Amino acid sequence: MPVPEPLRPSEIHVEHGRPVERFAARTAGMTASEIRALFAVASRPEVVSLAGGMPNLAALPLDTLAHEVAELVSRDGQVALQYGSAQGVPALREQICEVMALEGIHADPNDVVVTVGSQMALDLITRIFCDPGDVVLAEGPSYVGALGSFAAYQARVVHVAMDAHGLVPELLREALRTLAAQRVVPKYLYTIPNFHNPAGVTLAVERRREVLDICAEYGVPVLEDNPYGLLGFTGRVYPALRSMDPNVLYLGSFSKTFASGLRVGWALVPPAVRDRLVLAAESATLCPPTFNQLLVSRYLTAHDWRGQIKTFTEVYRERRDAMLAALETYLPEGSTWNIPDGGFYVWLTVPEGVDTKAMLPRAVTARVAYASGTGFYADGFGSRQLRLSYCYPTPERITEGVRRLAAVLEAELDVMRTFGSASRPRPSLRGPQAPSPDTN
Amino acid sequence: MPVPEPLRPSEIHVEHGRPVERFAARTAGMTASEIRALFAVASRPEVVSLAGGMPNLAALPLDTLAHEVAELVSRDGQVALQYGSAQGVPALREQICEVMALEGIHADPNDVVVTVGSQMALDLITRIFCDPGDVVLAEGPSYVGALGSFAAYQARVVHVAMDAHGLVPELLREALRTLAAQRVVPKYLYTIPNFHNPAGVTLAVERRREVLDICAEYGVPVLEDNPYGLLGFTGRVYPALRSMDPNVLYLGSFSKTFASGLRVGWALVPPAVRDRLVLAAESATLCPPTFNQLLVSRYLTAHDWRGQIKTFTEVYRERRDAMLAALETYLPEGSTWNIPDGGFYVWLTVPEGVDTKAMLPRAVTARVAYASGTGFYADGFGSRQLRLSYCYPTPERITEGVRRLAAVLEAELDVMRTFGSASRPRPSLRGPQAPSPDTN
Repeated sequence: MPVPEPLRPSEIHVEHGRPVERFAARTAGMTASEIRALFAVASRPEVVSLAGGMPNLAALPLDTLAHEVAELVSRDGQVALQYGSAQGVPALREQICEVMALEGIHADPNDVVVTVGSQMALDLITRIFCDPGDVVLAEGPSYVGALGSFAAYQARVVHVAMDAHGLVPELLREALRTLAAQRVVPKYLYTIPNFHNPAGVTLAVERRREVLDICAEYGVPVLEDNPYGLLGFTGRVYPALRSMDPNVLYLGSFSKTFASGLRVGWALVPPAVRDRLVLAAESATLCPPTFNQLLVSRYLTAHDWRGQIKTFTEVYRERRDAMLAALETYLPEGSTWNIPDGGFYVWLTVPEGVDTKAMLPRAVTARVAYASGTGFYADGFGSRQLRLSYCYPTPERITEGVRRLAAVLEAELDVMRTFGSASRPRPSLRGPQAPSPDTN
Repeated sequence: MPVPEPLRPSEIHVEHGRPVERFAARTAGMTASEIRALFAVASRPEVVSLAGGMPNLAALPLDTLAHEVAELVSRDGQVALQYGSAQGVPALREQICEVMALEGIHADPNDVVVTVGSQMALDLITRIFCDPGDVVLAEGPSYVGALGSFAAYQARVVHVAMDAHGLVPELLREALRTLAAQRVVPKYLYTIPNFHNPAGVTLAVERRREVLDICAEYGVPVLEDNPYGLLGFTGRVYPALRSMDPNVLYLGSFSKTFASGLRVGWALVPPAVRDRLVLAAESATLCPPTFNQLLVSRYLTAHDWRGQIKTFTEVYRERRDAMLAALETYLPEGSTWNIPDGGFYVWLTVPEGVDTKAMLPRAVTARVAYASGTGFYADGFGSRQLRLSYCYPTPERITEGVRRLAAVLEAELDVMRTFGSASRPRPSLRGPQAPSPDTN
């Protein structure tokens, strides 16, 4: 067999471009999220940012925590500052099971994998499940960080629409049937059942069994992402999908119930998945920070963490109320939105003809920021939608932000009327009574 | 065009196995490292573990740190416990540049990406560079965590041997020439120039320029992993490869110079790589823990961190001396090892005929653990080698551990002599005078 001529170094250079820029094919799908590009401008103090999803930590008892963390270092520093296991600290994994028990989950600490935020669990589960071209199902709209991980592993996202009661089972079945006709079995259904990011809706309890049954029928695992489940405003805690089916892959997080800057999340998965997830986690970071895990563990032991969550939800409810009142007061006809009963977000549909992505620079000029809808879809949908976060600013700032947003919308509509492109919206299509964030 | 018949759900099940076990192809390469499998048994208190790479934190001033961390929470808790940027805290990135300046690196903080340990940087750089089947060059033996990440992204490792002065330039050139004949350009050369893990050797200064030139000639970027660079025993700090070439991709870590349990490492990379690395990092964990970054930043500001590193190296030098003395005293003929002048490891070649992986269970029974050599190669080499770590146990325990190891080796040799499989080693092949950990 003839051996090919060796390349001369100069040929190699020409053929491959600069040495440090011969990237993997998967980098083509890695693009800066619209939301991320926005954060820089939106973080200027004069801008009311309704764009971010930063939890409000003002209610945390910092002095008590300071004492706690000092004791952790002085008493257990040799352990806290040292490497730990890739799966996470056993004591914390037991406590995580107690947290999940609030949502009806009976779990074995051996099936819990602690990760650097639940984002890491999401990314690694995608790593161990998805080959390039594989399909995953996700609500439309869906969490931008999930779409980022799916893109990074070259998975193809098929969206399933929601209505005011969350994912629509009939549409899920239809999507699975269509894919089966193409002989495609999605690797999983990624879903945020409670207080959805960005849609703000919650999957109705009577739909949960149905969603699980449909997925089981088609052999599709369910990946349940539940960072907001304990942040309901009515005191009601919904049963996790995982509580109804031990095959569900479950993701949880302390980012919204305690402190996002510690980056402690977890996955609860069946043993076969766990073994691979631990290997992937070891490859990704060796182990999650021991220090952060022990701090969360201490916090759960020594503090009234449920009382703290109640305090958080009171803060968020007050802000949600401010946002809903402002939307009612200021928004022009043709705008519809949902009423979230927990979590951080309102999903807003603006009057027909307005493009929320195109409008964003003008909104920021008017000192208000939001996350435009297209960032939450893998398929370019969402140009008439946007996400408003009420978690971080004060009620007064929220009111002012919505007032500014309304003025920007009015200006857009003015321009459209002047140039004849605005269709007169039907009066019925205004306000929170609209049934759906997505299917209208 | 005829539409294929939809699969019935039952067919899907049969065709694809259990729904939660349809894993991605890349999981085939993800196997538990031999070292990891060992840790469980080796961590029993009666076993002297010379296997792990855990830094010795006994010298850390815990009370001072406790005060520092408490102040961080009470004064800056709202920031420290909150999400941060995916690239890392700007103030820490500036301080990281000061740390790197000790090794002759002039860097812009904008080109630094903070990661959850340098393992994460290594994993993500592999993610953005390596398509399945791509080749990376690495020293033989190489860091087990790097081999894990290369396998996770289905990259193929081609080893280049070292001698007592590190990577051998002629062998590097030969490997590149052979690959070029196959029209293969490796994605990068992964190298640990200082106090190598596991080989313990350091790349001679006069070879550094040569290694860079050879790689440049063939259009291959250099990925320099430098967790031990400041842990030299002679006071000498070697110039980083990055200090000689701004195109080098550089990895650094606070795991060995401060505290591994905080998981704070970094990458210094050219802008085109940085942009993709930040996107990959965002997908992997959203952001590194803010809390940990601010703690490291405070530590660097408020403490004599160089003095602390000096203290660490004194601890490690004493332990290295204990290990070398014990090796001299106890090991049988036919054993050779290197003399590390920094870092954590001695790389030991045992008498011919002994298989270090097969011997390991017997060693653990004799209450001593080590890391067998095959785990540090992607190609099954290393069965006559093993890694001894002197970083963690006390000098007395190290001496006792080596004594036990020598007894296990003697017993292996006895069995081999009894069954006639031992070849009489040449007396010259004993002790630290052997030129190489790998090429003999």
